[in-house]
Amino acid sequence: MNDVLDRLAEVLESRKGADPDSSYVAKLYAKGLDAILKKVGEEATETVMAAKDGVPDKLVYEVADLWFHTLVLLAQQGLGPRQVLDELDRRFGLSGLTEKAGRQG
Amino acid sequence: MNDVLDRLAEVLESRKGADPDSSYVAKLYAKGLDAILKKVGEEATETVMAAKDGVPDKLVYEVADLWFHTLVLLAQQGLGPRQVLDELDRRFGLSGLTEKAGRQG
Amino acid sequence: MNDVLDRLAEVLESRKGADPDSSYVAKLYAKGLDAILKKVGEEATETVMAAKDGVPDKLVYEVADLWFHTLVLLAQQGLGPRQVLDELDRRFGLSGLTEKAGRQG
Amino acid sequence: MNDVLDRLAEVLESRKGADPDSSYVAKLYAKGLDAILKKVGEEATETVMAAKDGVPDKLVYEVADLWFHTLVLLAQQGLGPRQVLDELDRRFGLSGLTEKAGRQG
Repeated sequence: MNDVLDRLAEVLESRKGADPDSSYVAKLYAKGLDAILKKVGEEATETVMAAKDGVPDKLVYEVADLWFHTLVLLAQQGLGPRQVLDELDRRFGLSGLTEKAGRQG
Repeated sequence: MNDVLDRLAEVLESRKGADPDSSYVAKLYAKGLDAILKKVGEEATETVMAAKDGVPDKLVYEVADLWFHTLVLLAQQGLGPRQVLDELDRRFGLSGLTEKAGRQG
Repeated sequence: MNDVLDRLAEVLESRKGADPDSSYVAKLYAKGLDAILKKVGEEATETVMAAKDGVPDKLVYEVADLWFHTLVLLAQQGLGPRQVLDELDRRFGLSGLTEKAGRQG
Repeated sequence: MNDVLDRLAEVLESRKGADPDSSYVAKLYAKGLDAILKKVGEEATETVMAAKDGVPDKLVYEVADLWFHTLVLLAQQGLGPRQVLDELDRRFGLSGLTEKAGRQG
């Protein structure tokens, strides 16, 4: 549990009981699912715009915003980045790339 | 470099010189930036729809699709997941959460 | 009932009973709501991209695509452009701009 | 020029020289293209969400929001609804449906 995404998931989990006025994430939870989904749609649009602008720093910033809000969405639904990474791993056989010997499935 | 995202980034990098007919990613690269951005927009919409449906497996699947296509976008622009994770780390001071002693910034 | 949107709404209505193989719209209806919503999300993204490209013809083309798919969505839900135009009229008091004398509300 | 969209286009045109503090649209113009595009992306997402909720009034409201912001976008780019309706007309031969006798193309 030392990965950035895992630690971010922990932070997001810890904000669940917090006062809505105490943080941006606590406020988003309080507003509920639709408010979180609006942010996901908004950040996807901003990612597309940043890519069209061709400014690397801006693109990284917007993708970070997009990933962040999908993590808030996952947390709000009782899920986390591990499930997404497992799905990517399963799909692309990534563990298999470097650890083929040790894998069964 | 043993993280799922890092290994996926390696796979995406390796597809850059490949025949467009050899893989989905090679085809996306060949189609260019706009085709990749359309997929990012599409997968964001599907993430929103899956969340509204309230089916956890479907949501994980669509977020994986969304992250995957943002990784293709980053790779196509000469960037990768490390920059995004560094931005999240910087923004939330995540390293600081568990490794405060060893950090300067 | 001689407006382009009204006539397009009639066309969309007439496709409702049609063989899915007979037209693009009949196929979209057969696929159902989620397929239509994916197109709405996709065309919104393409509108954003066309605007960033700054090519007027392309922007007009993509906005036409976006409006078209929202009209398919409305039709599939038993609604039509009149309700949307009435909402815009109500919101901006547009009838009132030129026909204030003849209006009650 | 008695259609709701035409009159709305006139309103949007008239706001172009206005004080940013005088209206929502004047403020959007002042913020520029990216701010308008963010709204287009946001309203598309809200349209998708409203459709998933299956509440007709909400869907009409969100489609009105989406069309409105595409009209602001068109106006900001020196375009208007007539071009979009002409494109839809051209594409679906809608004039031909009721006025076939009087049409050449």
